[in-house]
Amino acid sequence: MSRFSDRLAAAARAREAAGLTRRLVARSGAGEDLLDLAGNDYLGLAGDPRVIEGAVRAAQTWGGGARASRLVTGTLALHAELEAELAAFTGHPSALAFSTGYHANLGAVTGLAGRGDLIVSDAHVHASMVDACRLSRARVAITGHHDLEAVEATLATRAEAHALVLVESVYSVLGDAAPVAELAEICARHEAVLVVDEAHALGTAGPGGRGLVAGAGLSGAEHVVVTGTLSKSLGSQGGFVLGSAAVREHLVNVARPFVYDTGLAPAAAGAALAALRVLRDEPERVDAVRHVAASLALAASTPEPAAAVLSVAMPSAAAAVAAAQVCAEAGLRVGCFRPPSVPDGISRLRLTARATLTDAELATATGTLTRALTTALAAR
Amino acid sequence: MSRFSDRLAAAARAREAAGLTRRLVARSGAGEDLLDLAGNDYLGLAGDPRVIEGAVRAAQTWGGGARASRLVTGTLALHAELEAELAAFTGHPSALAFSTGYHANLGAVTGLAGRGDLIVSDAHVHASMVDACRLSRARVAITGHHDLEAVEATLATRAEAHALVLVESVYSVLGDAAPVAELAEICARHEAVLVVDEAHALGTAGPGGRGLVAGAGLSGAEHVVVTGTLSKSLGSQGGFVLGSAAVREHLVNVARPFVYDTGLAPAAAGAALAALRVLRDEPERVDAVRHVAASLALAASTPEPAAAVLSVAMPSAAAAVAAAQVCAEAGLRVGCFRPPSVPDGISRLRLTARATLTDAELATATGTLTRALTTALAAR
Repeated sequence: MSRFSDRLAAAARAREAAGLTRRLVARSGAGEDLLDLAGNDYLGLAGDPRVIEGAVRAAQTWGGGARASRLVTGTLALHAELEAELAAFTGHPSALAFSTGYHANLGAVTGLAGRGDLIVSDAHVHASMVDACRLSRARVAITGHHDLEAVEATLATRAEAHALVLVESVYSVLGDAAPVAELAEICARHEAVLVVDEAHALGTAGPGGRGLVAGAGLSGAEHVVVTGTLSKSLGSQGGFVLGSAAVREHLVNVARPFVYDTGLAPAAAGAALAALRVLRDEPERVDAVRHVAASLALAASTPEPAAAVLSVAMPSAAAAVAAAQVCAEAGLRVGCFRPPSVPDGISRLRLTARATLTDAELATATGTLTRALTTALAAR
Repeated sequence: MSRFSDRLAAAARAREAAGLTRRLVARSGAGEDLLDLAGNDYLGLAGDPRVIEGAVRAAQTWGGGARASRLVTGTLALHAELEAELAAFTGHPSALAFSTGYHANLGAVTGLAGRGDLIVSDAHVHASMVDACRLSRARVAITGHHDLEAVEATLATRAEAHALVLVESVYSVLGDAAPVAELAEICARHEAVLVVDEAHALGTAGPGGRGLVAGAGLSGAEHVVVTGTLSKSLGSQGGFVLGSAAVREHLVNVARPFVYDTGLAPAAAGAALAALRVLRDEPERVDAVRHVAASLALAASTPEPAAAVLSVAMPSAAAAVAAAQVCAEAGLRVGCFRPPSVPDGISRLRLTARATLTDAELATATGTLTRALTTALAAR
């Protein structure tokens, strides 16, 4: 056995010993095998006939792929249309689509901060923002979750002229909301730029699902840049950055994951555009997903979440696994987060609400959840 | 004007002054406005009815998006099918699909090398590999283009136990081929892992378009890992890593752009799978694209390229721009690369062959190219 094989095998043994091996389990059909409260299709739009038709028509019109980088021949009128409607819906001057949400964060952060700059990042931002920090070559200061004093102190005492502050508006695992208005105020006072990842807020929070930046009246604020994804509430694939025309033009020129990447596939752009129109025309979906989230929170005896992500702290990794297992056996798929994938060491169940759950499904879900938590907590 | 706006404006002015501002020009219809020899749809499959049907059927069966990370509920039977056929076609034990080729490189490199390791990278690898090097925290040694002695010396004198060597099999801008067999031999001798990006070789080089690793009889070699894209010859969006089952399992567990990303959209997976089947069943397409490439090379008085990318070195940035302009005016879209986006400072035209050019289109293209080069070189 070569040194390389040996190394891979050792890593696999270590994962196995820690009970942390992740395996891919394929869904065998489009119909859910389980009632899925682990995915991020918050508005139930991934399977909506209008969204599918958006994908189909785009593929038929534009083909299977964009064929080139957006900067070469890979920009389609469809991309421009999607970007115009994303900007109009959220109230920002302009939007730029990326081929994944991960790329949107990599592109926005590395495009707006570099060597000699400061990035202040909440400890719980998404992996893509963490990677973006590493890539940027900026000095990175990690602040405690929602620790406004630490953010302000770090900005106030910095040596760097230029600083970015990175947060999620609704956190992907914790499900809680960032104090966006206060953060924007602090950033304005200290001439810093606030980058807000609305991946888990678009479609689930803010006025008509426009996100928390719009909710705080900050869409279009010069020092606020929003990132997001087309793969959650919009049921497709891809990501975007919202901001001023100058921010967009800057990223078009310097954001490497934009410049050196094939343009977003037509079907993905078409599906996202169709979903965006459904969201705009049917704001009651936002109320529906929040109602489901509140019902799940009640069943779990936790506070109502800020949007569609319900985080249930568990006393131990074993209790979390046990509760998830009870759910799975009852046909309910929930997420289970344990160390080392939680920065604060607290094991959690993560449940996501979906606007299209039927009353019967919601009753099953809440009943199962209550039972699973009771069982797991009693057994510890 | 705020400090941030001022900074963006200054960067824009500097780009403008250097003549380096990039602007997005949207294609207004699926029919090409120009004869496109700048994109990467080498086999003409992005618009193939079978590929479009693959996208359509996948969207209708699976919806607009994968709904979650592959590790949560975002793995579809369609992903498994695509991965199995990619592995079978290229002769590797296993494949793992990513949502972009950029992610495949980020995932493979950061998943296989980290702090305390060495990465030896050819100076001309793609931006995604450059970013992957930065992200990995490994020590990075850049070697001259195809400099086998430098690769060997760097590996031989290293202090690190584990080393990766990064190359492209066919380079994206230069269009030349890496000496894959020699590199693999050097890596074997020095217990290093060779990572070969076949983005521009799949469908255009090697036996039946299987790439240069397959061409060198190295598919399945334990110390060779291949990355690639679904967005070029396969006319879709996405990327993949090919290697042993152990490599795949390792990346599933540790590759952050895989773990923390929504799964590849169904339509993209379906389009790529359909395109892969066309490539497998119609190997004459590979001959066709190589014939077009050879004809373009003849017209440009350059050596026949290794695959579908023709690189024409120009005496100056001005001459390159002038030649591209003559082409554009005659309805021929070609790529134009100038400093600072060329690591060696040599301005180049980049033309890509497409298997589906008609004889008339090819005659137009070769005639225009010869005329453009003659004009531009005479004017300097």
